[in-house]
Amino acid sequence: MSAALPKLQVIKIGGNVIDNPPLLEAFLTDISKIKSPFVLVHGGGKIATEMAKELGIQSQMIEGRRVTDTASLKIVTMVYAGWINKSITATLQSKQKNALGLTGADAALVLSKKRKPHPIDYGWVGDIEQVNGKALHELVQQGYYPVFAPITADKQGQLLNTNADTMAQAIAIGLSEFYEVTLTYCFEKNGVLSNPEDDNSVIPHIHEASFLQLKEQGIVTAGMIPKLENAIKAISQGVNTVRLCHASQVLLNEGGTKITA
Amino acid sequence: MSAALPKLQVIKIGGNVIDNPPLLEAFLTDISKIKSPFVLVHGGGKIATEMAKELGIQSQMIEGRRVTDTASLKIVTMVYAGWINKSITATLQSKQKNALGLTGADAALVLSKKRKPHPIDYGWVGDIEQVNGKALHELVQQGYYPVFAPITADKQGQLLNTNADTMAQAIAIGLSEFYEVTLTYCFEKNGVLSNPEDDNSVIPHIHEASFLQLKEQGIVTAGMIPKLENAIKAISQGVNTVRLCHASQVLLNEGGTKITA
Repeated sequence: MSAALPKLQVIKIGGNVIDNPPLLEAFLTDISKIKSPFVLVHGGGKIATEMAKELGIQSQMIEGRRVTDTASLKIVTMVYAGWINKSITATLQSKQKNALGLTGADAALVLSKKRKPHPIDYGWVGDIEQVNGKALHELVQQGYYPVFAPITADKQGQLLNTNADTMAQAIAIGLSEFYEVTLTYCFEKNGVLSNPEDDNSVIPHIHEASFLQLKEQGIVTAGMIPKLENAIKAISQGVNTVRLCHASQVLLNEGGTKITA
Repeated sequence: MSAALPKLQVIKIGGNVIDNPPLLEAFLTDISKIKSPFVLVHGGGKIATEMAKELGIQSQMIEGRRVTDTASLKIVTMVYAGWINKSITATLQSKQKNALGLTGADAALVLSKKRKPHPIDYGWVGDIEQVNGKALHELVQQGYYPVFAPITADKQGQLLNTNADTMAQAIAIGLSEFYEVTLTYCFEKNGVLSNPEDDNSVIPHIHEASFLQLKEQGIVTAGMIPKLENAIKAISQGVNTVRLCHASQVLLNEGGTKITA
């Protein structure tokens, strides 16, 4: 059945690429050449952290993860949904792609719920509850290229900081009813590396069992684990193809790490 | 002919209301009761100025108008298109209005051109060149309530700071082909006052000739002149009704100052 569906790409672009203007510009030029519809989800980069620092706002970290207090929520909403989102949207428009900058709050496209404060209170952080795939599909059908900042809202109108990798996964799953979806996580590495010091040590394929093994062996650690969990969840819930690769490989079908069921 | 068109409201909400959370909340509750489609355009308020101050960025003013340098453009985009726009959008969503937060850059809905640097260089300020009324009409037809921040872009992808009153006027004119448009400028005063000290001195009707007279007599001055120029331009270019009133009067048909041709 899925062979009959039109193709669509969901592309996540990581914060390290956002922080590198020439790499970001080249990436946006690349994706503007994509012929199928796509949805772009962007991360935040260091701008929010720098701005918080300049404003004298302390970023509280627990187990390596930022706590989003009220001042931080305001900053990430400003930086992600304001500056980064609209800069990317305007740039894609200048490259003849009809980009539409969004957050989950817009058209209630991605609704979330504040994470429970136990055992750790991460503050104004949202876990995704629902993607309005039908409304997003209609916007895509009209010729728009949605560009998402990683901000969502709950049904009571509370804005919430949301993980961009998870947002890309949830959107990819939500669109799988309407499209044969390829989800690509683009970042500053060539893929999942078996040796973090060696850019050529890309693991070409990972599936759920091998992921568990890699995790046990300590080969994939820290930031890569939640990214791979998102990738595996996507492939197990209807997304056709999932790949993690360098931002410069976005137009290629090969390269990087492919996730299989 | 215009009698056959469906009704639509374009509502501009001023910065002083944005700066007053209880007044803003009451205003959003009010407009969520409007039965016809509407487009909301919001101003900026003092948040951007305060943030610039906290970041140690000097706001250069020429003849009472702010110069938008690169640092200021970043701040207004963050504050207007990020924090204010998404807060309003999420709040309207919680009140069962399917709000969609936008800038002119999104879907190229409002394209502008950087203002010429002579005789005064205002920096990254955009003068509106084109409203994509058809695309906006389609979004309205889909049941969306567009919420615009006063940021636009040119065709080269440059974001530009744009006057919110002018943006509301241009959007109202751009939608007049498809709707019988009512444009309402909501602010913290009861209308155009003949005596700024007396809140009850509202001038009930102004047309082009009486505006010129009021201007000559020095009765309308400063910030009110460009607002009235926008109002008169709107009424002369196809907008059905234009009114300036207190934010609390948005649901009423009476009250405030009505602009007539």
